[in-house]
Amino acid sequence: MTELARLPGIGRKTAQRLTFHLLQQTPERAGRLAAALLAVSERVHPCEECGNLTEAQPCDICRDPRRDGGIVCVVEEASTVAVLDHATDFRGRFHVLGGHLSPLDGIGPESLRVEPLLRRVREGGVREVILATNPSMEGEATAAYVQQLLAGLGARVTRLARGLPMGGDLEYVDGVTLAHALVARQEVS
Amino acid sequence: MTELARLPGIGRKTAQRLTFHLLQQTPERAGRLAAALLAVSERVHPCEECGNLTEAQPCDICRDPRRDGGIVCVVEEASTVAVLDHATDFRGRFHVLGGHLSPLDGIGPESLRVEPLLRRVREGGVREVILATNPSMEGEATAAYVQQLLAGLGARVTRLARGLPMGGDLEYVDGVTLAHALVARQEVS
Repeated sequence: MTELARLPGIGRKTAQRLTFHLLQQTPERAGRLAAALLAVSERVHPCEECGNLTEAQPCDICRDPRRDGGIVCVVEEASTVAVLDHATDFRGRFHVLGGHLSPLDGIGPESLRVEPLLRRVREGGVREVILATNPSMEGEATAAYVQQLLAGLGARVTRLARGLPMGGDLEYVDGVTLAHALVARQEVS
Repeated sequence: MTELARLPGIGRKTAQRLTFHLLQQTPERAGRLAAALLAVSERVHPCEECGNLTEAQPCDICRDPRRDGGIVCVVEEASTVAVLDHATDFRGRFHVLGGHLSPLDGIGPESLRVEPLLRRVREGGVREVILATNPSMEGEATAAYVQQLLAGLGARVTRLARGLPMGGDLEYVDGVTLAHALVARQEVS
């Protein structure tokens, strides 16, 4: 139960409920769960190329010849790769930083996979780096830092568009987003 | 109580609670509330120029000589004027349409204050019309409709930027917004 409560989003009560559920199962079923957990942690590792989580080296995305290696989308976490890949028709490759800069939590540049990204760009063939860090303070700071390091390496550097999200009402949009959406307004034709 | 329950966002239970609260007040206090309600509905009217709610004609914003009458921000509701005015440093003028196109609810172009907007633009002096309708289906349709009518009148037509809102995590952003933010990505320098 203590082990379960260490998982993110699982508190003491949920851990207790899960434990009782597991105790009511046959030992065989609990064994299958344990085996699956072991298999995942043994088999799945970060891709040596992009940092995405994968069983094979390099990962499916880095190996896919139909994807354009000239466009690299930089994200904070491996979980964002799947989200972006499902939601958009992005056909380039990814690079996972493994987090964002957060000096207060002791996360400095050395904790992030920035050097492998620079290496990929320096080795050539990368025309565009899309900085798709989170639209948070830390994400912004991380993007600004990576952007500085990329300057002069020859690749175009872009950021995901900022503005009003789809749906809803202007009155429920926060002021910072609203102010940005006004300043960055776009011509319609 | 029945009258209170007709207000938006007030259901039967809240209306009941408000009624009991009012009954516990002195008749004087209930009278003050009644007088305030009467005064508001008697004194406050749409501005003849822009449609914003105002006590004076034209409204404070239309009268303010420090505001640039050459830029008109078009919104659906009068309540959005205050929101945009507080959140941004917009120093132009507004135009309130009074709603959005919604054929299913029987709201067609004739229900909206579009003609007064076209008149303002035709009379000259308007360099830019910012379509700040809501980022919803109806808001988009309304913007597209107004944009068509504005074509050829000589004013630049713009829309609030669409993209990721400030704060939060890419993983919780809806797919449509994410896809748009990727397509509309912007160069950083």
